[in-house]
Amino acid sequence: MKVLLVFAHPEPRSLNGALRDVAIRELEAQGHEVRVSDLYADGWKSEVDRADFPVLAPDARFRPAAASGEAFVADALTEDVKAEQEKLLWADVLILQFPLWWFTMPAILKGWVDRVYAYGFAYGVGEHSDRRWGDRYGEGTLAGKRAMLIVTAGGWEEHYSARGINGPIDDLLFPINHGILYYPGYDVLPPFVAYRVDRLDDAGFEAVAEQLRERMRTLGSTPSIPYRRQNGGDYLIPSMQLRPGLGDPGATGLALHLNGAGAAGPGWVDEA
Amino acid sequence: MKVLLVFAHPEPRSLNGALRDVAIRELEAQGHEVRVSDLYADGWKSEVDRADFPVLAPDARFRPAAASGEAFVADALTEDVKAEQEKLLWADVLILQFPLWWFTMPAILKGWVDRVYAYGFAYGVGEHSDRRWGDRYGEGTLAGKRAMLIVTAGGWEEHYSARGINGPIDDLLFPINHGILYYPGYDVLPPFVAYRVDRLDDAGFEAVAEQLRERMRTLGSTPSIPYRRQNGGDYLIPSMQLRPGLGDPGATGLALHLNGAGAAGPGWVDEA
Repeated sequence: MKVLLVFAHPEPRSLNGALRDVAIRELEAQGHEVRVSDLYADGWKSEVDRADFPVLAPDARFRPAAASGEAFVADALTEDVKAEQEKLLWADVLILQFPLWWFTMPAILKGWVDRVYAYGFAYGVGEHSDRRWGDRYGEGTLAGKRAMLIVTAGGWEEHYSARGINGPIDDLLFPINHGILYYPGYDVLPPFVAYRVDRLDDAGFEAVAEQLRERMRTLGSTPSIPYRRQNGGDYLIPSMQLRPGLGDPGATGLALHLNGAGAAGPGWVDEA
Repeated sequence: MKVLLVFAHPEPRSLNGALRDVAIRELEAQGHEVRVSDLYADGWKSEVDRADFPVLAPDARFRPAAASGEAFVADALTEDVKAEQEKLLWADVLILQFPLWWFTMPAILKGWVDRVYAYGFAYGVGEHSDRRWGDRYGEGTLAGKRAMLIVTAGGWEEHYSARGINGPIDDLLFPINHGILYYPGYDVLPPFVAYRVDRLDDAGFEAVAEQLRERMRTLGSTPSIPYRRQNGGDYLIPSMQLRPGLGDPGATGLALHLNGAGAAGPGWVDEA
């Protein structure tokens, strides 16, 4: 397979850098082709602004979504953005690797999403009518491909557990897994999360590294998170609410959007 | 009161810009003192990197949290970061205003959090022992102050409802409200969320503006979201898991961390 790893840590000598190298070596040992977007090393620009849309008239009001759609159709996005889109189309698997900063991705990676996920490419795709609300959540430009997160956290795993104070890691990552990866079509694999990474000794590192190697060996076979497809019949149109009777009647929250046996709990989460 | 509004939209002529001006005018009419951090206009730097820590030796491995803590103690953070920290200490109320991009804040605002929330200032504060896990989640540097979000979304409110496909807005914003605002001590007010903002006509805008004015008039009296204090007895230490018996026994997910009557549902959310 072809794998794109988007890496968002400022220090190559970090634990993140070491885990990245572990992942790449294992993928290559398995015969996969790997490309890396190293956002800090590449000096990635984080902010969506007028400079992203050179065709926008200087006195025009800047509407980010409209400008993005117009530039995408006209093939007038900036070269850095187009290069990333080409990598996404090339890759069978996308991996986003980052340290968890304030319970989500670092700004530079959010800026990669904000800028690369153009209107017409990652959203605003497909028929919008009374029967379909576009190709998203399981359909779209990147459908048929797989994606997963590699995340490091300083905190304890217990603090991110079902009753942990930070909130369950699955819920914290839902805006990314469901909202950023599943949205444009990816099948999303359970995340690989390493906890208490500031306290790892050599043996601890090797244990985490081996768990990561196993995930890389099973990249093509690991079952994806069973999110519900938008246009598969589970949601009402146009309110896009889950049909009455689907999901545990007493359930609220994010687990509603999981289909089938996995929906009852966080059992699909990697316990690394 | 003193109010700091951090604004993260690239276009002053946007709906966000108009709502910002509505909020400022109402706050000033109520006699409050308002300062604005306009991140795009100020050319805010989004990425945490070595340049943030001039005292770091050039050949030293860059550990972001450690470098942040050392620079904070030595008063060696960069001037832009120190200026924002001073504004946070000055303000009685913090407002973060942004368009919802990919279910969270734009990169430039995440970069404001990543850089301004230094170790020793917003985290790593207070006693860490077998009795206390630091001053966080209701305690900390910014305790006693209030904070709220002003958010605009292109999508429908139904899509962000309890059973809506995007996930409930409260859950999507939990990493920000609980993880970024409550964490360093703020009392967090229900967010103000405006939906379908790309389709607003003049009457629609005026309705949203009036709802926002009302929120600005009640900034000092609106009850805050009843998150549970970390060190108030509800969580086990050191696992920081909610004590058995607290919360609905069948409940999972983020609503567990709400205390009292409001915990059963999203009734505390502003329905703007």
